[in-house]
Amino acid sequence: MTIGKQIFSTLADGKLTVEVAKTEFADPSGNQVLVKMEAAPINPSDLAILTGAADLEHAEYSPGKFIASMPEPFYSAQKARHGQRLPVGNEGAGTVIAAGEHEYAQSLIGQRVACVPGNAYSQYCIADAAMCLPLGDISSEEGASAFVNPMTALGFVETARMEGQGAIIHTAAASNLGQMLVKICQEDNIPLVNIVRKDAHVDLLSGLGATHVVNSSDDDFIDQLCSAIDATGAYFGFDPIGGGQMVDNCFKAMEKVAAGKMTEYSRYGSDQAKKMYIYGRLDFGPTLLTPAYGFGWTLSGWLLTPFLQQAGMETVLRMRQRVLDGLTSTFASSYKRKVTLEEMLTREAVLDYRAMKTGEKYLVTPQAV
Amino acid sequence: MTIGKQIFSTLADGKLTVEVAKTEFADPSGNQVLVKMEAAPINPSDLAILTGAADLEHAEYSPGKFIASMPEPFYSAQKARHGQRLPVGNEGAGTVIAAGEHEYAQSLIGQRVACVPGNAYSQYCIADAAMCLPLGDISSEEGASAFVNPMTALGFVETARMEGQGAIIHTAAASNLGQMLVKICQEDNIPLVNIVRKDAHVDLLSGLGATHVVNSSDDDFIDQLCSAIDATGAYFGFDPIGGGQMVDNCFKAMEKVAAGKMTEYSRYGSDQAKKMYIYGRLDFGPTLLTPAYGFGWTLSGWLLTPFLQQAGMETVLRMRQRVLDGLTSTFASSYKRKVTLEEMLTREAVLDYRAMKTGEKYLVTPQAV
Repeated sequence: MTIGKQIFSTLADGKLTVEVAKTEFADPSGNQVLVKMEAAPINPSDLAILTGAADLEHAEYSPGKFIASMPEPFYSAQKARHGQRLPVGNEGAGTVIAAGEHEYAQSLIGQRVACVPGNAYSQYCIADAAMCLPLGDISSEEGASAFVNPMTALGFVETARMEGQGAIIHTAAASNLGQMLVKICQEDNIPLVNIVRKDAHVDLLSGLGATHVVNSSDDDFIDQLCSAIDATGAYFGFDPIGGGQMVDNCFKAMEKVAAGKMTEYSRYGSDQAKKMYIYGRLDFGPTLLTPAYGFGWTLSGWLLTPFLQQAGMETVLRMRQRVLDGLTSTFASSYKRKVTLEEMLTREAVLDYRAMKTGEKYLVTPQAV
Repeated sequence: MTIGKQIFSTLADGKLTVEVAKTEFADPSGNQVLVKMEAAPINPSDLAILTGAADLEHAEYSPGKFIASMPEPFYSAQKARHGQRLPVGNEGAGTVIAAGEHEYAQSLIGQRVACVPGNAYSQYCIADAAMCLPLGDISSEEGASAFVNPMTALGFVETARMEGQGAIIHTAAASNLGQMLVKICQEDNIPLVNIVRKDAHVDLLSGLGATHVVNSSDDDFIDQLCSAIDATGAYFGFDPIGGGQMVDNCFKAMEKVAAGKMTEYSRYGSDQAKKMYIYGRLDFGPTLLTPAYGFGWTLSGWLLTPFLQQAGMETVLRMRQRVLDGLTSTFASSYKRKVTLEEMLTREAVLDYRAMKTGEKYLVTPQAV
């Protein structure tokens, strides 16, 4: 039995309470390992449990804790977690300090690993040895984001291949994940249309060698997008924004390009199949789809875990090896700031990372004081 | 060469002009037949070219003609048809009065057939003999709607089978098409959840033997829908409305039922796959999708022609035979009113059929005066 600090998130009586608390970690058994966590990123996907739509501006902050009201309909929508004390933090990295009796788990003792324990904002985690990625000489900080973003970016390329697509559109493309995707697509020779919303982000991605970077803040955004679609043949894409009309704009531009190649008018529009995936909710507003591109379109949610289950072990192992090989290059992440477990729950930090600004990711260092 | 009256629709200079005009029909060649059209329905899918979003309230009506302004963005969105004189009317039935030299086309001379010429609001049509459905003793009025609605309703059931789905949700279910679907699903023993918006429609479908009929105007609509989904296992459906939140409500209810069966909370919601198809646009407003059901959903457009192309000849022939066998029972259509080509363009008629009210379909009889 090991005792350490961990962050818990509880939603009850209309309020979200997030706090650092001492907790007991059972000894690992079977193929489990006990990891002393050294670094864990705050990804947008962590915010669903960590902050959600809580009113963080007017929350009550005290050392190692905040209590915020959770507005409707968001409070009721999460009924299934009411009263539950949930761990937070999808992924991180640290050192294996104990292991269950299985040989592979035992072999990891003393090694630095990246893992996906679900309670990464913690001094200790129990993880499945089979899911751990041994980091070798790579530091825990460099290895902390080895799973969510790299596997998601690679998952997009695998999904495109599985569906016979030769080019990809990516919105909100200046993110850490977006930068990885630029590099992967270069390596794999896949045309990529990057949509960003600032000139600085155009420069950033162009600096990485991206060929097609479109600025959604420009007056001629749709024209830029149409040109990029025409040049690449990208009728397939991924969007982490969710709310608003970004997906709608992509479908409109795809249809405009496809319709421009038609020789005869059709009331139903072009017969070009168009597909977009929403993989995040940077915007919690509703997704708006206008009747402007006929019926030849598909919009779907995309989530890493079901994708990996569907892809099969061989593909997943190949993807993991590629991540490990490129962890300090293609899949390198950068962080705006490092915080301890306690600093992570201060007003200043919370308001900053929940804004999910491009290039401003936080890294949690649970052993630091 | 045969001369007859036909309806044409022209969009130019911000105005939609629809008129009856004399036109010349070439002699049929090869496997073509010349059909003297006797009856043609006005389906929602015909309205895209016939009326669209034109301002029909304030249009200029004269005998056999109306001129209406077409508001933006709808005018510009149909740029590809500007200035073109388009025929109207997907389907209808009549008698073959001439044929090309091919044997099969010749064999149809004198027979009553249902056909899909694309200019059905016309005294004569050239049709592909291979696409004609010989009606035998069935009248042209009974056979006029033998294609669009029956094949679409059967197409839903075929799509469900292809995707391994055992139950179906149908919105706006009291339509002619919806009534056919009720009967098909009874014959094939497929649980069907019917969503309607009036008590009279609940009675109508229950009278046909429908088991699950849900009224979207009731206060407890979502609860009714959840119960029906729970009872049928329908996580798959078809929606002809398009705009608004009907699809969103279906996804929400599916997720509520699936989440209720979960033993552990997941930030991502249930892993129950949910799928909806939009196959019409009774509401031209944007489709709204809220972030209330995770990422395990897919929304797609559904259109008959690409479906049939994908389904293959064997399936299509089987579907056609089933339609023919059930044309006066399962696939019978009913009409509110019969109109001549000229009556069809009067203010009273236009405003009535463009409202697309359930159970108020029009039948055009091009030979009547």
